[in-house]
Amino acid sequence: MARIVMKFGGTSVADIARIRVVAEHVKREVDAGHEVAVVVSAMSGKTNELVAWTRDASALHDAREYDAVVASGEQVTSGLVAIALQNIGVNARSWQGWQIPIRTDNAHGAARIAEIDGSELIRRFGEGQVAVIAGFQGIGPDNRIATLGRGGSDTSAVAIAAAVKADRCDIYTDVDGVYTTDPRIEPKARRMNKISFEEMLEMASLGAKVLQVRSVELAMVHGVRTFVRSSFEDPHAPGMGDLLNPPGTLICDEDEIVEAQVVTGIAYAKDEAQISLRRVADRPGVSAGIFGPLAEANINVDMIVQNISEDGSRTDMTFTVPSGDVQKALAVLERTKETVGFDVIQHEEGMSKVSVIGIGMRSHAGVAATAFKALADRSINIRAITTSEIKISILIDGPYTELAVRTLHSVYGLDKQ
Amino acid sequence: MARIVMKFGGTSVADIARIRVVAEHVKREVDAGHEVAVVVSAMSGKTNELVAWTRDASALHDAREYDAVVASGEQVTSGLVAIALQNIGVNARSWQGWQIPIRTDNAHGAARIAEIDGSELIRRFGEGQVAVIAGFQGIGPDNRIATLGRGGSDTSAVAIAAAVKADRCDIYTDVDGVYTTDPRIEPKARRMNKISFEEMLEMASLGAKVLQVRSVELAMVHGVRTFVRSSFEDPHAPGMGDLLNPPGTLICDEDEIVEAQVVTGIAYAKDEAQISLRRVADRPGVSAGIFGPLAEANINVDMIVQNISEDGSRTDMTFTVPSGDVQKALAVLERTKETVGFDVIQHEEGMSKVSVIGIGMRSHAGVAATAFKALADRSINIRAITTSEIKISILIDGPYTELAVRTLHSVYGLDKQ
Repeated sequence: MARIVMKFGGTSVADIARIRVVAEHVKREVDAGHEVAVVVSAMSGKTNELVAWTRDASALHDAREYDAVVASGEQVTSGLVAIALQNIGVNARSWQGWQIPIRTDNAHGAARIAEIDGSELIRRFGEGQVAVIAGFQGIGPDNRIATLGRGGSDTSAVAIAAAVKADRCDIYTDVDGVYTTDPRIEPKARRMNKISFEEMLEMASLGAKVLQVRSVELAMVHGVRTFVRSSFEDPHAPGMGDLLNPPGTLICDEDEIVEAQVVTGIAYAKDEAQISLRRVADRPGVSAGIFGPLAEANINVDMIVQNISEDGSRTDMTFTVPSGDVQKALAVLERTKETVGFDVIQHEEGMSKVSVIGIGMRSHAGVAATAFKALADRSINIRAITTSEIKISILIDGPYTELAVRTLHSVYGLDKQ
Repeated sequence: MARIVMKFGGTSVADIARIRVVAEHVKREVDAGHEVAVVVSAMSGKTNELVAWTRDASALHDAREYDAVVASGEQVTSGLVAIALQNIGVNARSWQGWQIPIRTDNAHGAARIAEIDGSELIRRFGEGQVAVIAGFQGIGPDNRIATLGRGGSDTSAVAIAAAVKADRCDIYTDVDGVYTTDPRIEPKARRMNKISFEEMLEMASLGAKVLQVRSVELAMVHGVRTFVRSSFEDPHAPGMGDLLNPPGTLICDEDEIVEAQVVTGIAYAKDEAQISLRRVADRPGVSAGIFGPLAEANINVDMIVQNISEDGSRTDMTFTVPSGDVQKALAVLERTKETVGFDVIQHEEGMSKVSVIGIGMRSHAGVAATAFKALADRSINIRAITTSEIKISILIDGPYTELAVRTLHSVYGLDKQ
């Protein structure tokens, strides 16, 4: 007997027929003797419709009213899934965020979960009742509905799993797991059976759009074993594999990964822009003078590279921002020119960042050198490099993205079974 | 300065364009210096869609889950109307039933309002804030959403008006008021400027489908002056009349009606069936033996006529039920034959009930005689008669309904301005 949280996304609950399939799937876990909580998204397309209405009513709408409107989508599916479960003899009830309660901060529209009281859910597990929980929503300190931002149902599921001390959080989604790289670029990409929280965090934040980044952070902090699995629309269709054990990728503590790879995956992010400030005065506080105003303007600065200056008085500062934010960033930087004291700003758009990720590289030398040599062999120019303990990120010209991804995927042996 | 509750039905909030019109209308009342609470229904068609989904998920669905699903419709419109108000500079916020709270009993799907705490709404009036309240919903003793049954938003509005001690509750609806009879039958029917609570209750329960009956009961108990007015889709369209004072019918205490009519309106209900039990044993408890089982079977018995028996030992009992319930009623009655001890059951379908309503008839003799003579002059056969202090109901053959309504409307002078 295990305690499991099962999360189903919008396509899995898009209509009543699919909701019935979800119910059947939940029933199999219940029949297997498990304690189950279900977390659901809104029917696919519904959230977009609701968001469009709020925008239509006013371009600048109150985030608290947006939350009241948009959270209704998950309310509907939680009730419908509970009904579908009862219909096949499963004891179930729906829960809204305010009923549990899932307490959030006051950042309406993009709230963070502050605290979940799991005691009532646990008590009901003891009575054999399945909890069907509306994802994406909680209740703020103002006693009003607060939503967690797009993709927030993943975060709801992991947070619920932590609150009820679940053995596993199963995220059913459109993809059947986490791949060594994007299969659209490299058909030889393989699905990983396991990946550590840290690696997944790097993969997720670099654009492997499987899970919301915050849900992975939360899973890491609370040690929630999170299983990304494929949701199937018709369990009776041929070729669906082992229904009671659909394939997927388990995101877990690195201790659970017996044979850690040196490199586990290659991620990439397109549409990056590089901004360089030339001959910046090299004195304390200069970084804060540059990046403070950018942060205030809500510009997401990514790679930061600072070269040591030749004479110790002036330095070059290079960093990347999403291409869409370049003009805003340049305007902000122009206003700081006086106080920061740089010479010229240069910028270039159409760059990509490719990243080599692997927990094993902490204990292996030469991983970076392998990447640099492989890219050089393909005549791919490296514009900037940043490294962390488990990641090497390399900025290159955009048109080389696919070639670089395939080259790195191959050189670290990820093509092989 | 007055305190006003404004209730808008589904067609008034059917899309964002109409929601903007509602917001403009609310703004006019705010600009006129009034304290305003708005009660909204779901967008038209939305409740039907949600109900269909719950039925699709399971024919026998949990009423508590039904409530969670269906109440979402009003949640959406409350947020959208608040946004639309803010967009034109009106301080507004949405309120769900559980936030106020509107406490109900536990009868999910058809709950009754038990208590409303109006203190926070009143405090916010003091700050100049408009409350936009999701109609049709409250929170049950189980801390779950409870809906009030179809048409429940009228009841929400009147209950809110009572809780905040509003000066008036304006119900904006598809019709522009309450008429002396159905204008589709009698084009000379006139809109009443005022009608007493008691009369409206008789009109509403007899099929004048302007307001939910419970909302009228509530208005009567709490003395809430309720104004039924036409909602207009385009306030700039020609011929819309006085926008700040659209026409309508005020439902109020009879003391406020200076010149009470003897008869104020003619109501009717079609598709009635008459059931007669012949030679029923005339002893104590026999009525309970007949009508108890019918009530348990949820059959709505209306007119009941008991004739005095010739010899004091046996009597005839006649009553009406909706045509759709005849077969069920007959089956129930057959089972009581032994204990009740009647001779035969007769039944006839296709009857109609026409009713003459007026508070003035309490102090006027001859009202009933006028009706009987007028119908006799038209050769309309009277099958049964029941009377109350302010109403005379007459059962006739269905095909004569329109003729009877027009005849009675004319004989009491209701055609005249």
